[in-house]
Amino acid sequence: MVIVMRPDAVDGQVRHVVNRIEAAGLATCLSRGQERILIGIVGDKRLIATLPVEVFPGVEKVLPVTDSYKLASRQFRPASTVIDVGGVEVGGGRLVVMAGPCAVESRAQLLEAAEIAREGGAQFLRGGAFKPRTSPYSFQGLERQGLEYLAEAREATGLKIVTEVVDVTSVAMVAEYADVLQIGARNMQNFKLLQAVGQAGKPVLLKRGIAATISEWLHAAEYILSEGNYQVMLCERGIRTFEEYTRNTLDLSAVVAAKKLSHLPVVVDPSHGTGRRELVGPMAMAAVAAGADGLMVEMHPNPATALSDGPQSLNPEQYRELMAAVFSLADFLRPAV
Amino acid sequence: MVIVMRPDAVDGQVRHVVNRIEAAGLATCLSRGQERILIGIVGDKRLIATLPVEVFPGVEKVLPVTDSYKLASRQFRPASTVIDVGGVEVGGGRLVVMAGPCAVESRAQLLEAAEIAREGGAQFLRGGAFKPRTSPYSFQGLERQGLEYLAEAREATGLKIVTEVVDVTSVAMVAEYADVLQIGARNMQNFKLLQAVGQAGKPVLLKRGIAATISEWLHAAEYILSEGNYQVMLCERGIRTFEEYTRNTLDLSAVVAAKKLSHLPVVVDPSHGTGRRELVGPMAMAAVAAGADGLMVEMHPNPATALSDGPQSLNPEQYRELMAAVFSLADFLRPAV
Amino acid sequence: MVIVMRPDAVDGQVRHVVNRIEAAGLATCLSRGQERILIGIVGDKRLIATLPVEVFPGVEKVLPVTDSYKLASRQFRPASTVIDVGGVEVGGGRLVVMAGPCAVESRAQLLEAAEIAREGGAQFLRGGAFKPRTSPYSFQGLERQGLEYLAEAREATGLKIVTEVVDVTSVAMVAEYADVLQIGARNMQNFKLLQAVGQAGKPVLLKRGIAATISEWLHAAEYILSEGNYQVMLCERGIRTFEEYTRNTLDLSAVVAAKKLSHLPVVVDPSHGTGRRELVGPMAMAAVAAGADGLMVEMHPNPATALSDGPQSLNPEQYRELMAAVFSLADFLRPAV
Amino acid sequence: MVIVMRPDAVDGQVRHVVNRIEAAGLATCLSRGQERILIGIVGDKRLIATLPVEVFPGVEKVLPVTDSYKLASRQFRPASTVIDVGGVEVGGGRLVVMAGPCAVESRAQLLEAAEIAREGGAQFLRGGAFKPRTSPYSFQGLERQGLEYLAEAREATGLKIVTEVVDVTSVAMVAEYADVLQIGARNMQNFKLLQAVGQAGKPVLLKRGIAATISEWLHAAEYILSEGNYQVMLCERGIRTFEEYTRNTLDLSAVVAAKKLSHLPVVVDPSHGTGRRELVGPMAMAAVAAGADGLMVEMHPNPATALSDGPQSLNPEQYRELMAAVFSLADFLRPAV
Repeated sequence: MVIVMRPDAVDGQVRHVVNRIEAAGLATCLSRGQERILIGIVGDKRLIATLPVEVFPGVEKVLPVTDSYKLASRQFRPASTVIDVGGVEVGGGRLVVMAGPCAVESRAQLLEAAEIAREGGAQFLRGGAFKPRTSPYSFQGLERQGLEYLAEAREATGLKIVTEVVDVTSVAMVAEYADVLQIGARNMQNFKLLQAVGQAGKPVLLKRGIAATISEWLHAAEYILSEGNYQVMLCERGIRTFEEYTRNTLDLSAVVAAKKLSHLPVVVDPSHGTGRRELVGPMAMAAVAAGADGLMVEMHPNPATALSDGPQSLNPEQYRELMAAVFSLADFLRPAV
Repeated sequence: MVIVMRPDAVDGQVRHVVNRIEAAGLATCLSRGQERILIGIVGDKRLIATLPVEVFPGVEKVLPVTDSYKLASRQFRPASTVIDVGGVEVGGGRLVVMAGPCAVESRAQLLEAAEIAREGGAQFLRGGAFKPRTSPYSFQGLERQGLEYLAEAREATGLKIVTEVVDVTSVAMVAEYADVLQIGARNMQNFKLLQAVGQAGKPVLLKRGIAATISEWLHAAEYILSEGNYQVMLCERGIRTFEEYTRNTLDLSAVVAAKKLSHLPVVVDPSHGTGRRELVGPMAMAAVAAGADGLMVEMHPNPATALSDGPQSLNPEQYRELMAAVFSLADFLRPAV
Repeated sequence: MVIVMRPDAVDGQVRHVVNRIEAAGLATCLSRGQERILIGIVGDKRLIATLPVEVFPGVEKVLPVTDSYKLASRQFRPASTVIDVGGVEVGGGRLVVMAGPCAVESRAQLLEAAEIAREGGAQFLRGGAFKPRTSPYSFQGLERQGLEYLAEAREATGLKIVTEVVDVTSVAMVAEYADVLQIGARNMQNFKLLQAVGQAGKPVLLKRGIAATISEWLHAAEYILSEGNYQVMLCERGIRTFEEYTRNTLDLSAVVAAKKLSHLPVVVDPSHGTGRRELVGPMAMAAVAAGADGLMVEMHPNPATALSDGPQSLNPEQYRELMAAVFSLADFLRPAV
Repeated sequence: MVIVMRPDAVDGQVRHVVNRIEAAGLATCLSRGQERILIGIVGDKRLIATLPVEVFPGVEKVLPVTDSYKLASRQFRPASTVIDVGGVEVGGGRLVVMAGPCAVESRAQLLEAAEIAREGGAQFLRGGAFKPRTSPYSFQGLERQGLEYLAEAREATGLKIVTEVVDVTSVAMVAEYADVLQIGARNMQNFKLLQAVGQAGKPVLLKRGIAATISEWLHAAEYILSEGNYQVMLCERGIRTFEEYTRNTLDLSAVVAAKKLSHLPVVVDPSHGTGRRELVGPMAMAAVAAGADGLMVEMHPNPATALSDGPQSLNPEQYRELMAAVFSLADFLRPAV
């Protein structure tokens, strides 16, 4: 951390800042320029965080030098994390695909979707039993009934189950059925929920918040890791920008960045990331080329009757074509694996 | 809702769309232009929401005509809602101020802050006992101990207490102490929490999410109202933009818009909205001039020792000056009240 | 400027960076922390800008300490600049208003608008003779004919004329008629145009770009000032965000910030800033309360026939009411002037 | 275009709107719902644009149905445009690469860069002779001298030249030397400049503005096409968002969208799009996988001495590796070409 003193800061103010910092057990380094005095602080980040240096007299601003997540950083753990979900590896070099409908709507719909997902090559079935919706009047999910259907679909197909958990009180219930607990974008900074899934001992898929910086996303992961659960997959699903043509702006540079800054695997959701069926395929290909470890894709046996997110769901044929293309691309790009 | 058909849509597709809509009990109106056929849908919004019209063959896009919140809309309730918090009216024409530290840090700090807040003219004491923080290593609040101090400060000063509740499991505990339950920006779309405070029977202050549209904000309010709790105050606290000078961009036009679209009172938080102490005063004045019903202002008896958000907290003298200015401005602008 | 070295930077890399900087005639200050080595650079900003320190081996990142505009900064000129436009002072404490139609459409329309503007208390008539439009098929302005009408309106009313100049080749023509040359938001970084108006010797109104940071805005002003023209008024007119209800998000905190960082006067345009007639009044009031030196307001004698920007233009009655309110508020807030 | 009437609109207002529209030679279609009356307008878009329907009494809002660019739309010209630049096709299926330094700095630097660019497989040499810079004190380019070096590099290597033109007065000079005239992001809505390059009769590379929607970008292209010049390549180079890790957010979904909405070829600039050397490679790969027709990549023989944009320039070795990878990927994805 570097403190920039105001141009009119007097010596007593500089001394006061230095004394306060050193009294907290941290070292300083003074740098006198023509226009400004700079004070570098070195030491434990957590100690620094407790010091309100911005409000010491004479201080103009404070420049942070390093981020304060640690367990999630690649510096802490240089090798990429590989998560084993009942025999399916995420982050191990082979592309994983999580496919299925936005919401679990019925037993028939889900079993049909699961069969199609498996045939196309997906290793995971996605599908929401709890659906956070902007309007209280929209379909909110089948809840436990939906989880039962998901478990049945796993029995039938062997696919692993990834499904969303929306609050602390239902973590145990969802963990009973799911192989991977999904934290949705709206809950990325629901810290109590992050702690709860951190304690649940199951792999977690953590979606990036709609307006979260990469740093905030990794801090959110840190909440989970700091409970002792290192099985966290990050999921880029688009950020909110001024562009109106797409529902969100899928930020593939965040995939590259997250994999440089962190050891955790990164999955991309081009369905929510674009909100338009015709963009899903090209953006899935782009995600693989950018180095994503996995894809999460919405597919519905019959999109025209879907209860939620219809416009971005692939139909079975579109799904099969895309699977052939992405696995072929992954093989081309990472033949040695 | 208006459906825009693709330029190449054939008659069969148009008939199919019309039939599906009418089968759902809704009326349609066809409009044939040179380049496009438009199909208007009229009827109950909730019925429309269940129809996946975007994926019907031949459909290019769907234009929503009206928002789907209802109880929160001014159309539903033309008169402005006035919330009575133990004798203090919010939305009744008289400016209310909620002042206090970002976080409850100690008994002494809080009691001192409360006394200063009261002297300056505030009717509410703010202060977090539960603090959602980006990093798991930052100070997270005194929890129940903090609530105890808040209750003691109420006893000492007569101020009403507004404090944040961060998850469903602590709603009952916070409601035991607080006069107003605050939902933070990160939880604006934590729908389970919204339902829980809707059921708690206490007034709620609902902060706008950092990247929430005004429509989403009012839909979040609808979650609370639809549980039967109409005592909701909206709170604008800045949105996330590309600008880096301010921590957030305080969107005062949202105050005006929310008061036109909804009957609920609107409070402005210029402290989080700007993140810079020197901007708090002018933006508080601007908020009053824009028609805000209340202000929420961070003030700390000694900002240089604050455990969180120091850079934006006013010191007692700055606070007193600002209070004199804003109440004087409010009197000038709304003399008849 | 502070250089943060990578955690794995070796001594040779640190020495290389220091040597390169000192060879350029700048001083350095080394700060060795537990995790990072920091190198402070002190000296002439312009020398620093020529050094590609980001790409020196071992460098992780570079933190700028100060902005590189100078003439526009309040540090350079602590007293607020007051611009005298033919006897009307901008920035001198008295609120100025620039009112008129978005575009000059006809002689009759403009003369009528000018008369209404003057009666309401405006000191300036606004109106575009050159209109930059998103579509090449939209009305582009009356050009020289429009300038002639503006000059005639000045004769008739005594109002000063502010009108937009859109390219280098027409600066001389516009300067022949206008009292203030307006640079539109789309041209804020049209640097050749900034230099040309800098050389034209007329006061300039510089609108903030739709996605320009405050720092970039002040750098754009620096282009004009560095040509020797100090008569620059800044104009906040809304920035682009994710919010769709308003056409832009009017950033009033930028008014406060710009006046702290710079000595130049700041005008606010709530018409373009909101894009909605019903928000113009409250946001104009808020702008005055935030400390704006002036307002730019769209008013049309008959908005229902306006050729551009109709939805945000006030009608004459709305304009008169607003003028009464803003001048009354300005008198209340700055009685001593 | 669909007009939504206010809930309280009276019959006379509806009749007035209909009459005004029909008087302008357009047809209407009325749709009476429970809550709202909708009026569809059909006919020539340009006629509609002249009607200020938003301000007719009783009108709540207006929903545009189609965009108003025409020549740039794929509806107008279903086949993809292929641009022949002296024998090199852009948009014809084979990947093109434009490589070179951000700025032309010296004869030696440019000739060295050109040789490396050619060896790596690029068909175009990029390099700025005119550099728009945020600060007036930054290096602004060698101007005509730089153009001379570019021409000399073309002689030496056979590469085509793409270079930026920053104002109307230098279009003729740049067109004398360049094979492709580049319009930078800051000038995307400098309409006079768009018209000038439209008249210059040379291929144009049109960068997307930093906060431009896809629709505005295509409207900007329309300005060039409407002057009779159809040789326009679009270039995505990142948009401004809240994310701070990357300089801009490279929006690859815009590539897919632009190619669906328009027949023009699309080039991607991952160097400016990310601002970080280590992200350039993966994002270039992703761009190819998303379907980009070309790449524009910054490469410098010695990035550590670059006068501008050093942090994002590849060194020669990184460049050669990337070229091998992207051409290999392009061959894999489009073998039939």
